[in-house]
Amino acid sequence: MQSGTLRRYLPILEWMPGYNRQMLANDGMAGLIVAIMLVPQGMAYALLAGLPPEVGLYASIVPLIFYGLLGSSRALAVGPVAIVSLMVATTLGTLAEAGTVGYVAGAVLLAFLSGAILLGMGLARLGFLVNFLSHPVISGFSSAAALVIGLSQLKHLLGFDIPRSHLITETIWHAISHISQINPATFGIAAVSLAILLIWKGRLGGWMKGAGVSAPVTDAVSKSGPLVAVLVTTLAVWFFGLNQSAGVSIVADIPAGLPPLALPAFDLALMQQLLPAALLISLVGFLESVSVAKSLASKRRQKIDANQELVALGAANIGASFTGGYPVTGGFSRSLVNFTAGAVTPLASIITAVLVGITVLVLTPLLYFLPKATLAAIILVAVANLIDFKIVRDTWAYNKTDALSLIVTFVAVLTIGIEMGIVIGAGLSIALYLYRTSRPHIAVVGRVGETEHFRNILRHEVQTHDDLLVVRVDESLYFANTAYLEDELLVRVADHPKIKHLVLIMSAVNFIDASALETLETLISRLRDAGVTLHMAEIKGPVMDDLQRVGFEDTLGEGKVYLSTHEAVSDLKPGTKAKAA
Amino acid sequence: MQSGTLRRYLPILEWMPGYNRQMLANDGMAGLIVAIMLVPQGMAYALLAGLPPEVGLYASIVPLIFYGLLGSSRALAVGPVAIVSLMVATTLGTLAEAGTVGYVAGAVLLAFLSGAILLGMGLARLGFLVNFLSHPVISGFSSAAALVIGLSQLKHLLGFDIPRSHLITETIWHAISHISQINPATFGIAAVSLAILLIWKGRLGGWMKGAGVSAPVTDAVSKSGPLVAVLVTTLAVWFFGLNQSAGVSIVADIPAGLPPLALPAFDLALMQQLLPAALLISLVGFLESVSVAKSLASKRRQKIDANQELVALGAANIGASFTGGYPVTGGFSRSLVNFTAGAVTPLASIITAVLVGITVLVLTPLLYFLPKATLAAIILVAVANLIDFKIVRDTWAYNKTDALSLIVTFVAVLTIGIEMGIVIGAGLSIALYLYRTSRPHIAVVGRVGETEHFRNILRHEVQTHDDLLVVRVDESLYFANTAYLEDELLVRVADHPKIKHLVLIMSAVNFIDASALETLETLISRLRDAGVTLHMAEIKGPVMDDLQRVGFEDTLGEGKVYLSTHEAVSDLKPGTKAKAA
Repeated sequence: MQSGTLRRYLPILEWMPGYNRQMLANDGMAGLIVAIMLVPQGMAYALLAGLPPEVGLYASIVPLIFYGLLGSSRALAVGPVAIVSLMVATTLGTLAEAGTVGYVAGAVLLAFLSGAILLGMGLARLGFLVNFLSHPVISGFSSAAALVIGLSQLKHLLGFDIPRSHLITETIWHAISHISQINPATFGIAAVSLAILLIWKGRLGGWMKGAGVSAPVTDAVSKSGPLVAVLVTTLAVWFFGLNQSAGVSIVADIPAGLPPLALPAFDLALMQQLLPAALLISLVGFLESVSVAKSLASKRRQKIDANQELVALGAANIGASFTGGYPVTGGFSRSLVNFTAGAVTPLASIITAVLVGITVLVLTPLLYFLPKATLAAIILVAVANLIDFKIVRDTWAYNKTDALSLIVTFVAVLTIGIEMGIVIGAGLSIALYLYRTSRPHIAVVGRVGETEHFRNILRHEVQTHDDLLVVRVDESLYFANTAYLEDELLVRVADHPKIKHLVLIMSAVNFIDASALETLETLISRLRDAGVTLHMAEIKGPVMDDLQRVGFEDTLGEGKVYLSTHEAVSDLKPGTKAKAA
Repeated sequence: MQSGTLRRYLPILEWMPGYNRQMLANDGMAGLIVAIMLVPQGMAYALLAGLPPEVGLYASIVPLIFYGLLGSSRALAVGPVAIVSLMVATTLGTLAEAGTVGYVAGAVLLAFLSGAILLGMGLARLGFLVNFLSHPVISGFSSAAALVIGLSQLKHLLGFDIPRSHLITETIWHAISHISQINPATFGIAAVSLAILLIWKGRLGGWMKGAGVSAPVTDAVSKSGPLVAVLVTTLAVWFFGLNQSAGVSIVADIPAGLPPLALPAFDLALMQQLLPAALLISLVGFLESVSVAKSLASKRRQKIDANQELVALGAANIGASFTGGYPVTGGFSRSLVNFTAGAVTPLASIITAVLVGITVLVLTPLLYFLPKATLAAIILVAVANLIDFKIVRDTWAYNKTDALSLIVTFVAVLTIGIEMGIVIGAGLSIALYLYRTSRPHIAVVGRVGETEHFRNILRHEVQTHDDLLVVRVDESLYFANTAYLEDELLVRVADHPKIKHLVLIMSAVNFIDASALETLETLISRLRDAGVTLHMAEIKGPVMDDLQRVGFEDTLGEGKVYLSTHEAVSDLKPGTKAKAA
């Protein structure tokens, strides 16, 4: 037991003993490929967050090691991701000027708060909270966030400043109306980068396969798009001196050396101000991470422990905050690359971290001439996948309520803001669920032919009786629907003046809360005054236990509790010609 | 149809045509008795709200007429009530000094806002919103509010000032530690008033019945307690000059004449500040009113239209705001008195209004010597009924979750405040409901003997199979429980390695939202990869309609949809010895 518990909290103890050379080869290749992706992406996402590029690299070293030691996923690639970077930008945007020291300190503090929240939630086993974000809300949020992210890169792609705005129409309008300020060289670099990224991502694999290149090579090459784009455009800027002659914005000096080991600046007032945003960043980051981890784990029949993931991501973020990084989480695209490149254990992550560490130690001078337009193009291609309009149509076809949640979240994120947008979406989806359960489907049922089955009289040819009403309530009885149920039943009784017995089929009632119990007691006495006896059938075990504990059978008076509807109808209408049970 | 619609919006058209002398006699008597109660209560509640006594009288004239014309209840007595008065006091307490002109203007504005909110909710048909306050939350709120109200009267009963405090312990401690400042004459008046009220309420009826007095007379006399207390103590103060000689606080000058007809002061900033409180006052007031109205209506087989009630109460509050009144609603005790005194139509309310009008026109000089201690005693006796500790024990016995909501609401109202307390209680009860539905009961079932019935294997002796798992999910499938369901099913499949078929019994699933549909699709393909086919049984009509619209049967692949569990098991295990359907 002892070692089992320990293994649950330190998953490394599970895979380490059986580790062999073949696994190391796989993990090594995967670690290398992810590192090649991560260096430009890390810098790009840091820029998206309004931070200097090295902060993205710092966030790609220690957090990966911490996650590798603690995480329950074998293939999750942790680090800076697009949506979290955007949320950091909007949070700090109102507090400090982007890129300044105070701004960086704010980002570091956000990572610390986010880490503490995740760790605390993991220890309190609150992983389930994330289930309250519905898929439509997440879809709407992702699509809108991707649009906001894409538009935020316009200035880097076009080479002139576009002021930050809540309204996307304002951003687009500013870009169009100032299009004469475009920097042709910057725009050219962006176009070349986009072309390389799209070709490498799309057609290249097909061409190589057509030329008879083996699948693993094809696969590896088609993932090198960002690296190729970085190489081509960096060389072009350096060779033609485009940063001097044509005003192309470049990454320039990146401080060499490992990330600084330092405490976050614990400013209490600032912490209080950042707390709500840190909570949302944690929840959204955790959600993205755990859904990727789950989908990868299930492909290899492995399990993800949501609470252990919270602990691991919490440690990763705290690690980021002590090494000059900003909030991280498990990213979708890099994790998928890690997985398909063959990562079998978290050692792949640790290898990635070591390679990124070497990069910041010795390779930063090579990144001096890297144009920001190339990083913007990498972001643009990465987030384009997140925009999904087909899902709106599919959701609309299946369920209008869910489609409404999706659309409202999408619109709210675009018009009100990214944080409030997801809060509004989540609140709406919960409100709509509550509204739905507050007006349950109530069916009057009758016997199908000579069988023991009872079905809705509106949907089937069934046999009914003048003085016996059999009603099925399709929802648990709780405070929000109990008044509705009472009204509906009384109306149905009023509509059938000959009724003497009312049978309530309880097969879909999973619990009865105290409000509903009180209403049932009132209902029974009101029906009794009107000469109607209430009976119940098919009460579930747990519900019956609760009712018996408060002596509900006395409350029912002459009413009875039947095991099945058939039994109830046979007892109350013994003359009915139906096969005996 | 035309006149039906009109009659729905103007209920007076329904009862006016059949009105006769006998009805007028009944309504007249009820109207008189309620007026006798209402004059001292209206002044007492106005003092509780921190307002001059005449504001309570003004709020007891026009609102009653408006409700009489528009309300759907035949017996509801509208006017100032204790809880709403307390909420007015706590809202305005932070804004202005009690009793000043700005304070009165704030109360009038609250009535206007509250009226506008109620009217708007009625026109938008939002009456259902009130169902989201559960009975345990209301119980906890009422008990705590009654305690707060009772303690707020201590200063009038003891005759020395006790500063307002959030903490009841502080109030009690202040009273005890300053008990030497007690005003003996005031305390004596309070004690006499309390004795009269309690004797009239309790033993007097029994004594009179024992003496052979007829029931109607007994009934009328036992309700005259407040009037007797007012007469006795007013005369005592006047005769002995206790206001001068012994420092007894009296009502003193009440401006004679009908309420002033005036516009509320439309101060936009103040309106914004008061809006949240006005919303809560509206909801709590509406809740109290509609529950009284419903319980009285059902005794005479009449119906209450919740949305029409919103309109009527909205008009009543707007009426109050234009005639110098403060927020009103239908009160519990006066409505019950109105009903038992024989009110058959809202004309009783209108008669009450006329009598209160006559009082403010000509009788106010008689109230000059009325001691405030008597009014405090009237409040104390009225709210004592609201404190109910037995319900805590009963709720705890039935359902710990509901008991938790009750206790948290009670404690929050006492410690944090009356408005935040009810918000916290309502939020908690909704959160607990969501938590409960997010972890549904999942039962593995088997066949009971040779029957067609399937029951939980943990509760019954049932027949199961090695390669067939039959599982019943006792909750609708929606975003909050879909991940839990997936995990639980996969664990159960992992625990039974021989399983080839998994049958999901859907009898308790009332809907499947888009998130759950997506999860089901993932689950089916994961199970398929593990060599398990998913089948479904007993899907409800509306759920099946939704699933068919998106071609769910294709998603199921080899899995089938069965009408009954029996059919599924017979088909998948044809060798089973069970009676054919």
